[in-house]
Order: sequence, then structure tokens, then C-alpha cells
Amino acid sequence: MFFAYLFLPAILSAQSAPKTLAEKLGYPPDTKLLIVHADDLGVTHSVNAASVKALESGAVNSASIMVPCPWFPEIADYAKAHPEMDFGLHFTLTSERIYYRWGPVAPTDKVSSLVDKNGYFHHDWTPATRIDPREAEIELRAQIDRAYAMGVKPTHLDSHQYRLDSTNKELFAVALGLAHQYKLPFFVTRDWFADFPYLESTLGPDDVVIDHTITIEPAVFVAANTAPEKWAAFYNAALQNLKPGVTELVIHLAYDDSEMRAATRERDTWGAAWRQRDFDYFTSPAFRQLLHDQNIQLVTWRQIASLSKNK
Amino acid sequence: MFFAYLFLPAILSAQSAPKTLAEKLGYPPDTKLLIVHADDLGVTHSVNAASVKALESGAVNSASIMVPCPWFPEIADYAKAHPEMDFGLHFTLTSERIYYRWGPVAPTDKVSSLVDKNGYFHHDWTPATRIDPREAEIELRAQIDRAYAMGVKPTHLDSHQYRLDSTNKELFAVALGLAHQYKLPFFVTRDWFADFPYLESTLGPDDVVIDHTITIEPAVFVAANTAPEKWAAFYNAALQNLKPGVTELVIHLAYDDSEMRAATRERDTWGAAWRQRDFDYFTSPAFRQLLHDQNIQLVTWRQIASLSKNK
Repeated sequence: MFFAYLFLPAILSAQSAPKTLAEKLGYPPDTKLLIVHADDLGVTHSVNAASVKALESGAVNSASIMVPCPWFPEIADYAKAHPEMDFGLHFTLTSERIYYRWGPVAPTDKVSSLVDKNGYFHHDWTPATRIDPREAEIELRAQIDRAYAMGVKPTHLDSHQYRLDSTNKELFAVALGLAHQYKLPFFVTRDWFADFPYLESTLGPDDVVIDHTITIEPAVFVAANTAPEKWAAFYNAALQNLKPGVTELVIHLAYDDSEMRAATRERDTWGAAWRQRDFDYFTSPAFRQLLHDQNIQLVTWRQIASLSKNK
Repeated sequence: MFFAYLFLPAILSAQSAPKTLAEKLGYPPDTKLLIVHADDLGVTHSVNAASVKALESGAVNSASIMVPCPWFPEIADYAKAHPEMDFGLHFTLTSERIYYRWGPVAPTDKVSSLVDKNGYFHHDWTPATRIDPREAEIELRAQIDRAYAMGVKPTHLDSHQYRLDSTNKELFAVALGLAHQYKLPFFVTRDWFADFPYLESTLGPDDVVIDHTITIEPAVFVAANTAPEKWAAFYNAALQNLKPGVTELVIHLAYDDSEMRAATRERDTWGAAWRQRDFDYFTSPAFRQLLHDQNIQLVTWRQIASLSKNK
């Protein structure tokens, strides 16, 4: 009896120690697991065509779709015809280009804080931009509803330009609330917890948290303009130094063609040449070989989503 | 006194005989006047790029812009920077493609008869499609207002797919009413009066009526697939047989590139190859030579609009 009392806390502790995401997925906790995730599907035909090509090549294994964008119907049709693929919704509340723009799915007069004077989503959010979280919820729900209505069955949710993660607690709570309601995971990584403490405090015990995320930055783009090998060098180093657990690698694919150059011509960042470099790297045999050499396992949001559904 | 009474009716008749449009423009009535008019600017980057190239080449001299479409900001920026060019607004109430779509400028809940269940403009109008003319007016006014707000100063108005001319008297009256309110001519030709008698009965004495219009039809496209020379042959014959008065030649320019092929891939009519053929013809030296040989004078909507403004 004495011993039983003595060991009970230890036993309870061992039983209740939360499993890592890797363990929940059936891997030893030190396994290096990777989601190779293409963002921004639907924004242009060039992005759709390059992303589908990369997904079909097999080394890019997940992607998310911008419902308000003009080329959403093309990728929705593809997603409907390929229900095995790992497509999420890329919640979109900005229209960040100048010569090519889009606006809300919801009626603009119901989401007036989200739009500029011409009816497009704001080009950018500044500290002076007052986004009403209730209107964000109306719009994001409209995006989800249009996606389902047009045949997309998303495996996950995430946020264009990380706006819903990095703006304030209220907007994050809107995204997370929709995730709960539609029983879909919303992309959050503990890499962001230090910068945005409200993330951790808003998440519940059943919410999925990705261990790490990696994405290439403008400084590499600038460096690669004079030394092209620096593009691959960034990704090679990232993969060689990949940490145990689940990492989402966020990439941006397109062809450097006339449509993409025109759509992005006011600035190079995340532009046509940038996205062509990503396409070239992630469809290269060298990338596949590195995954193999580093013993990196690919994992999808579909697998992650199935954990909470099977609970 | 007797003679005065005798001749008064003849004098009055001569004074009040309506001048032809050619005469109002300062030409003898038997002059062959031509507007070479590119439709659908704003719909894709490919259309914008090819149309601007053709306008700058000089032989295409007028165009109209689709305000609700994703690439409107690009062509609005161009129009603002080129105030001398002859740009009108191409009133748009349909989204006729499948993989690439657009919706209203006005809030969708204010124009619900114009949209399908996913919030895009109807793909097509059938006899069962009930378009509320009051909602059409709300939407078209929103298109005009966005155009002005973004720096476009239109010289004229016309209707995508001729929907506002060829559906019913109520919709034509909406378009004409907006034309009056904004003091812009709305494209109507007497070639359509027999098929749509309400046009003539709705027009007022001060409304501009274009004498004739010419546009290429799907049968020529099909014929040109096996005999490419038939494309130019159609236009050559049309120009060689041009009637006196003002004719609007309605053309559709784009490049046969990946964006345009994807945007139009469900059918060939008015598709990428069609529009490349138009681009090739209307930028050819042969077209310019034919205008010269046939003594055809080019005229713009700006000149036509200035007639009513100077009244």
C-alpha cells in the first residue's frame, strides 16, 4: 500500500506524458519527418501548372489553395479529380500584388474592413488597418464553403502570408475556431511561439502543433542573383541539419513565364524567378537523393489530420 | 409671301434632315470609316499584352476593358498612363469560362440574380436565367465607378457578348440609361435593329448609332484550322466590301500562350489560337496596306463621343 502510493505519481506521469507528433504518427521520436508544402495554389495558372507538375513528380507532397483567387476553379477541378492528394485551404485575406488582384468570396459589404476602396482585399495590413475578426470569420467561412461546394475536401488549413498567425490573438482564434468546427488541423509551429505568445496560450491540448518550419528568405534570393548555387545550398543545408520531429518546408512553385512575370513584376520577392528556382530545386533528382541520404521521411497533412479524427 | 410659304417646308426639311454619323464627323457621307476595336481587355494578361502591342502598332485604334476581371488593374494602370488612347468599358455580367472565373464588383448579396451558387457571374444566360435589371444597373454602375476610381476615363461603353443588346428591352434600357448619365456613347449598330426591334424604339434622337459592325465567326475558325489562309481572307473580303459610313470591326486579341490556352481550354471559340490569329492579322503590314488601298479612314470612339459633348 505504501509502495503503491509512492509509485503512483510516477506511473501516472509516464502514462500521461504527451507523445510527440512523430510518435503519434507511428515513428520513433527522433525520426526526421518532412512535409514538402507548396503554397499559393489557385493564384495564377503558372502556379497551378508548376505545382501540379511537382506534386505529380512525387517529391512535393502537400499544398494549399487560395479560394478567392481567379484560378481557384482550375485547381478545384484538379483536386476533385485527385482526392488522394494532400490539398489544404490557404486562408487568404490580402491581395498583395498591384497589377493583378482579387477580393473576398463573401459579399464585400459584409466584410468591409477586409477591403480597400476599390473592393479588393487590402494590398497590405499596416498597424492602421483595422481588421474586424467577425468579418474575417465570415470571409474565411465563405472560403471553406466555396471550396467544399466546388469539390475540394481539404486535409488542412493554413494562412496566406501567415497573417492569421502573426497579427493578433483574435484573428488566430478565428482561424483556430474554424479549424475546430470543420475538424481540420490549422498549421502552427512551435518555432513561432516565442514571437507570438498568444499562439501557445490559445491552442488547446488536442490541437496539432508542427515541430518546425523552414522557408527561404529574400536574402537568399538576392545572393542567388549573382551566385545561383546559393539557392540549392540553402535547402541542402536545411535538409542536412533537419531536426527530429515534424518539419513543414514551405515552398512557392511557378514557372518564370509571361503570366507570372506580369503578375509579380513590381517586386522580385516571391516573384516569377524565385518560384522557378523553387520548382527547379524541388523537382530535381538531387533533392530526392538528399531526402534519401539524410533518412528523411515524408509525411502529409492527411496523415496528421487522421490522428485527431481517429481519437 | 406666296413663294416664302411655298418653299418653307423644303427649307425646313433640308435644315432638319439628320446628318449621317460620317457627316457629323466631318466626312462626306460616302466615306468608309472604321473603328478597329479590340474587346475583352482586362480578362487575362495575355489579352492585355497582345492588345497593348496592337494598339501601339497603330492599326488597332480602340478597345474596351472588363472591369470585374482579375487583370483589370494592369490595364487600368496602362490606360491611366496613356490618356490619349481610346479605351471604353466592356460591361461584363457573365463569366463564360470554366477553369478561370470572376464575379461582380458590387456586393454579391446586392446582385444575387447575376451570380451562380458559387458567387461567380453566371457561366451563361439561358431563358431560365432571371436577370433583375435593377441588379444589373447596380453592378454596371459599380463597374463604372471602379474604373473612374482607378484612373480610367472611358470614351465609350459596350457589352461583353452583346448581352445588354440582345437579351431584352429592360437590360438595354439599363445600359442606355447609364450611358446617358455618364455622358458616354453606348455601342449600338443599326445592323441589329431587325433582330432586336426594341433597340431602335428605345434609342433617343441624340444617341449615337454605328452604321455597321463586322466580327469573325466560328465557321471561319473551323475552316482556317485546315486552310489557315481563310482567316485573312475573311477580313480582306470584309474590308474590300466595306460599306460607306462608320463600321466597327470587333476583334479579339491575345497570344496563344500557356495562360490563354489554360483559360480557354474547354472550347476553341474565342480561344487562344483564335486570338493569336487576330493578333497576327491586325498587326500585319498587309492589313495596313489594305486600309490604304481601300481608302478606309480610321475613326475612334473619342471622336464620336466628342460630337455629343460639343452639341
